[in-house]
Amino acid sequence: MTIEDLRNTIKRLNSKAGQMKMDLHDLAEGLPTDYEKLMTVAAETYEIYKELDRLKQQLKTMETS
Amino acid sequence: MTIEDLRNTIKRLNSKAGQMKMDLHDLAEGLPTDYEKLMTVAAETYEIYKELDRLKQQLKTMETS
Repeated sequence: MTIEDLRNTIKRLNSKAGQMKMDLHDLAEGLPTDYEKLMTVAAETYEIYKELDRLKQQLKTMETS
Repeated sequence: MTIEDLRNTIKRLNSKAGQMKMDLHDLAEGLPTDYEKLMTVAAETYEIYKELDRLKQQLKTMETS
């Protein structure tokens, strides 16, 4: 993956993460409504932020090497 | 447990759940900051709402029997 590809992937994931963050925010605000969905929404949100963190580290390494 | 005890327990758990809901709401709003804490906070919040749901069902049963 080129630095350019990596930047595009991060950009795409960032906007998706922004949407998921809002979904989790709304779910938290609406509790106890839909509390059954909480673990699924939290896990999906956690996974995307973990992946973003990893890709950002990778980008930093590529930019400084 | 008497109906009175059950009502008090629900009342106490409700206020604790309200606080945890705010913590999860703030964490979601602040993402990606502290994303590592997300699964722990979500699990604790989920457990308390599941327990509240159970106790409210129990209260309904006791009140109508």
